[in-house]
Amino acid sequence: MAKQKKPPRPKAETPKGFRDYFGAEVEHRAEMLRQIAGVYRRYGFDALESSAVETVEALGKFLPDVDRPNEGVFAWQEAGDEGRGDWLALRYDLTAPLARVYAQHRNDLPTPYRRYAMGPVWRNEKPGPGRFRQFYQCDADTVGSASMAADAEICAMLADTLEAVGIPRGDYLIRVNNRKVLNGVLESMGLADEGQRAAVLRTIDKFDKVGEAGVRELLGKGRLDASGAYIDGVGLSEAQAEPVLAFLTSRAETPEATLDNLRAAVGGARIGTEGVEELGQIAALLEAQGYGPDRIVIDPSVVRGLGYYTGPVYEAELTFEITDDKGRPRQFGSVAGGGRYDDLVKRFTGQAVPATGISIGVDRLLTALREKGRIRTIERGPVVVTVMDRDRMADYQAMVAELRAAGIRAEVYLGNPKNFGNQLKYADRRQSPVAIIEGGDEKARGIVQIKDLILGAQLAETATLEEWKDRPSQVEAPRGELVARVREMLDAHGIGPEA
Amino acid sequence: MAKQKKPPRPKAETPKGFRDYFGAEVEHRAEMLRQIAGVYRRYGFDALESSAVETVEALGKFLPDVDRPNEGVFAWQEAGDEGRGDWLALRYDLTAPLARVYAQHRNDLPTPYRRYAMGPVWRNEKPGPGRFRQFYQCDADTVGSASMAADAEICAMLADTLEAVGIPRGDYLIRVNNRKVLNGVLESMGLADEGQRAAVLRTIDKFDKVGEAGVRELLGKGRLDASGAYIDGVGLSEAQAEPVLAFLTSRAETPEATLDNLRAAVGGARIGTEGVEELGQIAALLEAQGYGPDRIVIDPSVVRGLGYYTGPVYEAELTFEITDDKGRPRQFGSVAGGGRYDDLVKRFTGQAVPATGISIGVDRLLTALREKGRIRTIERGPVVVTVMDRDRMADYQAMVAELRAAGIRAEVYLGNPKNFGNQLKYADRRQSPVAIIEGGDEKARGIVQIKDLILGAQLAETATLEEWKDRPSQVEAPRGELVARVREMLDAHGIGPEA
Repeated sequence: MAKQKKPPRPKAETPKGFRDYFGAEVEHRAEMLRQIAGVYRRYGFDALESSAVETVEALGKFLPDVDRPNEGVFAWQEAGDEGRGDWLALRYDLTAPLARVYAQHRNDLPTPYRRYAMGPVWRNEKPGPGRFRQFYQCDADTVGSASMAADAEICAMLADTLEAVGIPRGDYLIRVNNRKVLNGVLESMGLADEGQRAAVLRTIDKFDKVGEAGVRELLGKGRLDASGAYIDGVGLSEAQAEPVLAFLTSRAETPEATLDNLRAAVGGARIGTEGVEELGQIAALLEAQGYGPDRIVIDPSVVRGLGYYTGPVYEAELTFEITDDKGRPRQFGSVAGGGRYDDLVKRFTGQAVPATGISIGVDRLLTALREKGRIRTIERGPVVVTVMDRDRMADYQAMVAELRAAGIRAEVYLGNPKNFGNQLKYADRRQSPVAIIEGGDEKARGIVQIKDLILGAQLAETATLEEWKDRPSQVEAPRGELVARVREMLDAHGIGPEA
Repeated sequence: MAKQKKPPRPKAETPKGFRDYFGAEVEHRAEMLRQIAGVYRRYGFDALESSAVETVEALGKFLPDVDRPNEGVFAWQEAGDEGRGDWLALRYDLTAPLARVYAQHRNDLPTPYRRYAMGPVWRNEKPGPGRFRQFYQCDADTVGSASMAADAEICAMLADTLEAVGIPRGDYLIRVNNRKVLNGVLESMGLADEGQRAAVLRTIDKFDKVGEAGVRELLGKGRLDASGAYIDGVGLSEAQAEPVLAFLTSRAETPEATLDNLRAAVGGARIGTEGVEELGQIAALLEAQGYGPDRIVIDPSVVRGLGYYTGPVYEAELTFEITDDKGRPRQFGSVAGGGRYDDLVKRFTGQAVPATGISIGVDRLLTALREKGRIRTIERGPVVVTVMDRDRMADYQAMVAELRAAGIRAEVYLGNPKNFGNQLKYADRRQSPVAIIEGGDEKARGIVQIKDLILGAQLAETATLEEWKDRPSQVEAPRGELVARVREMLDAHGIGPEA
């Protein structure tokens, strides 16, 4: 029994940066997750669902957004038996938990361990328009394989997955880079200062937006951005900035040419050469499997924000244009990213365990499909059996039971039945295709009225009086033919039986 | 780039009371959620996914376990712009968030609003064996209907749902009670003290365990429990305890007889009579729809712990016996519960909004099906293509691509290929049905070796030498027949194509 404290009325709001998802939104996401899991499974990946809550120490601190409280995670301290307990947090991705799971269960798991996972993750970020603090990811990772074949497989599978969910070839591009190449470039520049290295990486990440000239300015003294604000530069000399620019502009027509350019950009740096070598292996494997540069390319401008990557990094972007909030066209952008993180399991075990994987931003991918009109957005509600006589509820319940048994969504109106108009308004709001009416007169005659609400709406919009008469949207049928006649009506509107 | 602080090695453990789910466990749950959603949808319920995080004030405090920190929820305070921000918490069920959602979006939602929801909920409970702090619920609720037809529908749908996921009729029972009847009994006893009322409710909840005589003792002076400990009683007189016992023992052969007994037990109390009246309506509706007492019964011993119920309450239990940890038989018990909560939306809006619904404990239901052997527990891994020559990775990748295109789970071995025995051990650990071998010799002859690992394991266990020779578990096939021969082998073991 609740205590009767009479507190002030609570606000009916989600916390800032959170939202609710209704009806078709939920179902489309479930369907997309099912499709993605199908591809991952066919590639041999096994399902894993780890807990949403982890200890802060197990998650580690790898988010780029370090200025936020708790470095970007939602965290709290357990009430311990004596004094204070562990700090717990909501997972911010599915990769850090995988490292913990593998370290914990490694004796019971196969090696290599291919696993997929899907579910919400939480980021304690500053909320903004279209930027939510809970969103879905759908990941696949291979733990325990150092082979570049594992990275190539992840890229190929990502291409297959995007096509499976409805992004046609030509509308996406998977860009592959290697952190080692980046590190080689930084090494060949003689940049020892950690802060300056980080500033250079952030600048590289802006290449897509500001282009070669912009990056040149940002690596040097700085530049005026589009809004007129002056952005401070990293402060490198022209000569120092040169390897970065050579690196960024090394993408060429063929993978071979790109690799040659990269080899030049890293100079003789051992780590850089190793990175170029790895990219070469990935490119060769993908080419042999028929994944050409129309799907997967080597692109030096890919950085990826997370701190745990050690080798190849990938990013999938959708290349078609959409219109933004202000009506301006822009490229849709990134929907998935990942890479190799050879040191994440080592944090726990002390032993190096190579690992690589990909994370798909499911909500962004759904938005993309919606923007392209590839998801049917009109949801159809259930058949509504109206209540003409509230003492005959059992009769109406029998009708919906019959309809459901035939795989037809159906419900009895459960509001106050007094006002019949309200019942039809309700059916309209539910986007019901069909309403059933059985008053005392119909009952006596053994018939029901079946109202085609979709046709009714169409006729109301466009029909002439003649058409109204020719195509009545309401028909009488014997009670025994209820299911068959409703099925016909639904079929005519392309609404198939429920799964 | 991660900062190199060299902290002590983190422990590779979930927080206490949390766990990970692997492979088939995850897939069986997803499949069960899909089946339940299918029934809910057919009944006209729409999907809703609210955020996992709510403000503490929106969730309210309705959990019975009030001794725990934050009254049983995981909560933390937002870092506000100035000083301190809102208290946020993980949802502890899907009902409290629904009340918030309905209050927030009521102008855009149909009334009545039938919605289903599924997902994890979190309870900050003391962890114990088999008792986890994150678990799945799958709910259906009708908001905005005061009609008992809504309650009857929920009970009928619950019965349909249990049968749809594989609990046969006879193995479950849905018990229905009404809080108003309980309150009527308490009123007719003249119990004004809130603490004593709560103590009586807790005692009623023990009826299933201690029986009539036990409840009589517990309502009076107290009793020795099975472990020899003395449990203090509520301290009622014999005469005071009588209505409670009359109430508890009122379940009779027919709903009509039970209702007569209940009417007697509540005396003339207005609220109690109203409750009996409501139970009568539910019983009549269910009987008319053919849901007899083999599926749904009126049972006065159902209490339900949550504080927000105001009218009918339901509980679904599985009636078959299982063996507990100590090898003793016990009834499986509750897998779902719910009821009517007419005041939960009013907390936000000030206006009464009637609502009723059910919550299925999906993880418990899965455990039940596993105990009964109704879920296939052996998971089959992918076909493993072994790596005989690491320079021909592209050849092996081509094989798995062909197999996958035919709907066959398949992967290339990605560990160190040097030791062939390790590759077969890996396939064994993955529970792979088939392994493919193509060394230099096979390549030259245009053939592949196809190894039936299931048959191989059977033969290794039981076969005589003759049988070994008659039924070779490894066959040679032309490379071009790879897919067809693997398909045959899988079919022979009843492994169909992937969805």
